[in-house]
Amino acid sequence: MLPTEGRKRVQIEEVSPEINGGRFAIKRTVGEEVRVEVDMFCDSHDAISGVILYRPETSQQWLEAPLSPLVNDRWQGEFTVSEMGRYVYTVMGWVDHFKSWRRDIIKKIEAGQDVSLDWLVGAELIEQGSQRASGQDAEQLKNWAMTIRSQQKEGADIPYMQTLSEERIALMTQYPDRELATSYEKELKITVDREKARFSSWYELFPRSCGAPGQHGTLIDCIEHLPYVAEMGFDVLYLPPIHPVGYTFRKGKNNTTTAEPDDVGVPWGIGSSEGGHKSVHPKLGTLEDFQQLVRKAQEYGMEIALDLAYQCTPDHPYVKEHPQWFKHRPDGTIQYAENPPKKYQDIYPIDFETEDWQNLWEELKSVVLFWVDRGVKIFRVDNPHTKAFPFWEWMIEEVKQTHPEVLFLSESFTRPKVMYRLGKMGFTQSYTYFTWRTAKWELTEYFTELTQTKVHQFFRPNLWPNTPDILHKFLQHGGQAAFKIRLVLAGTLGASYGIYGPAFEVCENRALKPGSEEYLNSEKYQIRDWDLNSPYSIKYLVARVNQARHKHPALQSDGSLKFHTTDNEQIICYSKQTEDSSDVMLMIVNLDPYNTQSGWVSLPLESLGIYPYQPYQLHDMLNDAHYTWSGDRNYVELDPRAIPAHVFWLKQ
Amino acid sequence: MLPTEGRKRVQIEEVSPEINGGRFAIKRTVGEEVRVEVDMFCDSHDAISGVILYRPETSQQWLEAPLSPLVNDRWQGEFTVSEMGRYVYTVMGWVDHFKSWRRDIIKKIEAGQDVSLDWLVGAELIEQGSQRASGQDAEQLKNWAMTIRSQQKEGADIPYMQTLSEERIALMTQYPDRELATSYEKELKITVDREKARFSSWYELFPRSCGAPGQHGTLIDCIEHLPYVAEMGFDVLYLPPIHPVGYTFRKGKNNTTTAEPDDVGVPWGIGSSEGGHKSVHPKLGTLEDFQQLVRKAQEYGMEIALDLAYQCTPDHPYVKEHPQWFKHRPDGTIQYAENPPKKYQDIYPIDFETEDWQNLWEELKSVVLFWVDRGVKIFRVDNPHTKAFPFWEWMIEEVKQTHPEVLFLSESFTRPKVMYRLGKMGFTQSYTYFTWRTAKWELTEYFTELTQTKVHQFFRPNLWPNTPDILHKFLQHGGQAAFKIRLVLAGTLGASYGIYGPAFEVCENRALKPGSEEYLNSEKYQIRDWDLNSPYSIKYLVARVNQARHKHPALQSDGSLKFHTTDNEQIICYSKQTEDSSDVMLMIVNLDPYNTQSGWVSLPLESLGIYPYQPYQLHDMLNDAHYTWSGDRNYVELDPRAIPAHVFWLKQ
Repeated sequence: MLPTEGRKRVQIEEVSPEINGGRFAIKRTVGEEVRVEVDMFCDSHDAISGVILYRPETSQQWLEAPLSPLVNDRWQGEFTVSEMGRYVYTVMGWVDHFKSWRRDIIKKIEAGQDVSLDWLVGAELIEQGSQRASGQDAEQLKNWAMTIRSQQKEGADIPYMQTLSEERIALMTQYPDRELATSYEKELKITVDREKARFSSWYELFPRSCGAPGQHGTLIDCIEHLPYVAEMGFDVLYLPPIHPVGYTFRKGKNNTTTAEPDDVGVPWGIGSSEGGHKSVHPKLGTLEDFQQLVRKAQEYGMEIALDLAYQCTPDHPYVKEHPQWFKHRPDGTIQYAENPPKKYQDIYPIDFETEDWQNLWEELKSVVLFWVDRGVKIFRVDNPHTKAFPFWEWMIEEVKQTHPEVLFLSESFTRPKVMYRLGKMGFTQSYTYFTWRTAKWELTEYFTELTQTKVHQFFRPNLWPNTPDILHKFLQHGGQAAFKIRLVLAGTLGASYGIYGPAFEVCENRALKPGSEEYLNSEKYQIRDWDLNSPYSIKYLVARVNQARHKHPALQSDGSLKFHTTDNEQIICYSKQTEDSSDVMLMIVNLDPYNTQSGWVSLPLESLGIYPYQPYQLHDMLNDAHYTWSGDRNYVELDPRAIPAHVFWLKQ
Repeated sequence: MLPTEGRKRVQIEEVSPEINGGRFAIKRTVGEEVRVEVDMFCDSHDAISGVILYRPETSQQWLEAPLSPLVNDRWQGEFTVSEMGRYVYTVMGWVDHFKSWRRDIIKKIEAGQDVSLDWLVGAELIEQGSQRASGQDAEQLKNWAMTIRSQQKEGADIPYMQTLSEERIALMTQYPDRELATSYEKELKITVDREKARFSSWYELFPRSCGAPGQHGTLIDCIEHLPYVAEMGFDVLYLPPIHPVGYTFRKGKNNTTTAEPDDVGVPWGIGSSEGGHKSVHPKLGTLEDFQQLVRKAQEYGMEIALDLAYQCTPDHPYVKEHPQWFKHRPDGTIQYAENPPKKYQDIYPIDFETEDWQNLWEELKSVVLFWVDRGVKIFRVDNPHTKAFPFWEWMIEEVKQTHPEVLFLSESFTRPKVMYRLGKMGFTQSYTYFTWRTAKWELTEYFTELTQTKVHQFFRPNLWPNTPDILHKFLQHGGQAAFKIRLVLAGTLGASYGIYGPAFEVCENRALKPGSEEYLNSEKYQIRDWDLNSPYSIKYLVARVNQARHKHPALQSDGSLKFHTTDNEQIICYSKQTEDSSDVMLMIVNLDPYNTQSGWVSLPLESLGIYPYQPYQLHDMLNDAHYTWSGDRNYVELDPRAIPAHVFWLKQ
């Protein structure tokens, strides 16, 4: 069967970025650039031209960005997304007869051939162009063609450099003949978020530890804590679940299976007769208190992020109201969570294969919207890889349709493809393996994968040196220096990072037992009373790192991350810069918390925007020291007892 | 908006092979295997299972092949295509509750936990399986479940190793619950050709040079030549265009612009008052002569391949009958071919942007079908990259729908992406850059790309050491040894290869002028009288190479090609083997036509199917010599004055 139009000669393939054949959206924030590359060519020797077409999904009007040839039939162009929400983009290419004609007539003239007929061909092409133009442009093109015709008629030697001036060519280029243009067969998607999706500094805090010593802290106590967190420079305050905690099979301190009467339980054990996912734990306060916290945080430049943990204790209202949302065992009891031979009897997982899945999905979405209506625009999602993928894709899309400003952080520590798929399904940011990557080679390999491959298009890393679940052995054994090292790495390798505090900044390093990553006296199971003015606290360094992050746009995105050579396996060196190279940051970190390390770093000066034959200045944002270096090899020495890192602002 | 079914928890992505998101078909021949890989996983800890679904496009019945897990959520399976034509394949995966149950109950039993309830869960799953089964299988499953139930009721300690025997598990595995199975969103295509698409030995011959000295040869003269070609072991005899040659602007000997009255012109200058693409040049004979040649060739085990050169001389009947198929210049004349400043006034290219493109396409297709009806099943297509891509995709598909046995060789020597795209558009085989790749590093790099990347899925190389257009300088200067080297490389690197003879086997090496790749006294412009019994002829070696190719299935496909280390840049070593390693061939070639070269080759013995601690035998198919080697490093010495290569059959 013949196609409708068989004369579309341009071929378009290998469009990049394109995630899984266009099945998933790439991610950008407002004001960011989308650089598109594509293989584009046609048969024969004809010249071609092409454009990127893009638009907000809600608009009917395509916008255009030109494509320019690279090498090997690869073309490139870029555009900027300016609104939150969904964009689409595609590519269009066409055989450009005017471009071919111009190229060929010049070759012929330079070879001394008779081109009188060729001028007439050109005049015709220009006349056709004038018909596609209007107003003054049309007039100008028409005159141009007429001039050519009359000169040709007179047998004059047409001065081609003048006749084919840059200006005239540029005018004609505005009115290409796209009648037989080829459109790429797919429209590709972009999710455009607000800036915080790309650049965010998180602080995790248990509100119940914010009270007076020995007391169950409240959300109002938490408000008292805001200046402390704000002074360190964080902009997202993330609270573990604030809902009523279940009683049945409640865990005791240090994860013991029997709770004492005064044990407060695990915040992730959600639901009791006091309410479920839309309630505030009575001991934390009221919904009004929560909304006051949200407002106060805003005053300090911080947003509250809530924990979204879709699971229930046996006491959760859902268990009685919607028993069909849980799996039942042959004896009629509800199946608790297990990972044989381990049992988690305090948790009922939701059964995403329930026949009542439609109502379940709607209810789960309503939880998000409930808190969105109360000012929460960021959700840290607990273990999303244990809930069905199709739900996430639907829910996130639904929420963002009306609230494109809402962000979801995936707390998924599992196999790489599962974590990436959650990014594709719509999660804004994700936890990463950073928590366990401490050696130079593994940091280099992992962050190259995250930032320099297509992963960067759909997966935004959020780097956590610690979490309430993970006290890595590097932190357990490396003393205060280990915390400094991991802080600087997290805050400069990742445009988004977070710490679980105050445990982190006071350098809490006691594990439950040797070989365990669990904290001793973990806040997951009990209230802790932190000494915020501990002499071991590194809160001043935290503030310095966050200041550097806020001041330097180079640190506010990840795509430019490059690692540089050092001759010491304990010294890692990397840089980030803005797209226009107006801001360039160079980080050098001693990964050894025990010993001073020294060595030579080698820098690709030109790609860092440095003129190679001039000295250049480095301003260390951590201690305000100034250095002048010259050449591409320089010596560094870093003492873990002082500040084991440089965070340099590079100035020519 | 909610999806129709939200409970399909398995995620499927990164299916391989998949060409441009499924836009194009992969290629196989009848009896070949398709190995499919896919990323497949679900949320949580549930076990999953999956299958490849495949079928001839004309069948409604899916066939299935199981998928097995590799590592990192990657799964693999394979199936064999058994009929010519179009196949489709896709992947399906589902959460396998029975598999999870079996895994978990064993863990619990081994941890000494009470599993009485778990046995009931299992019994229920098995009962559900029995409902999906029928006959004896259903009965067996039902009994199995009943036994479990009664044992459980009695409080007996159920012997799980026995109850969950391999046999019973295998039975249950036949009846999986696929109600919530996920199907991959695309059906991918396979073009299945006959074997010659994969394995073919071509000989190009100008029939007009087959006559008595000084005479214009005929197709009947060509029949006389068949035994000569057949004895060398070729199975495709490819003839340059056999149609009437134009007179206007006919080229003279050695491409001079003025032809003498007795000059025969260029066979690719098609069309005169004597006819066009469906006619036989009167000096070559008649259509009946041609059909006799086809039949006689068959008797010698050879197929005739015709040249499909869609272009016309000014004398072609199309020019008068369908002037709208050509581009007209402002003075009313038809635009001849040009590549400024070069002019080809004897050729009118077809204008694929003609408004009458539908009729043009149909006519061009009818040319193919005309010759198909006269027994031609192979076409060598001249410069397909100078005709519109959409035409090829349509035409090849149309022809193969009714004649899946028809093969098209793309004679496109142009930029890599254009050549690959023609493969994607449906061309069965393609010429390659082999003609210009003479150094070890470039042969290794290029053939690794062709055979070990996805290119292998849609682009079948056909290797030509020479063509009437190309006498590479390596052949011009390297004497007889150069021809031997290039012969062995072509015939063993490529399952399909061809030579333009007798120029090749008689070692014709005179170029038009220094620096040119054109032959002196090229057959493109004149009749040549070849001395087939020249003492320089390497026809005996050609026959040897073809014998080895026919005898050894390892040489009949390209996917297994591997290069091996040698310590001499002039010695290249590579192997090919069948999928079951029952046939293993090892090639070692001296790339230097001037000097004896020696060195050590290193072989990965195990991957060649050789037990590393035993001697192994090598039988050289070129000279029948036998060697016994042991260990992975062995010495070779190759004299270009003798046979500059080993083509070893490896025997344990």
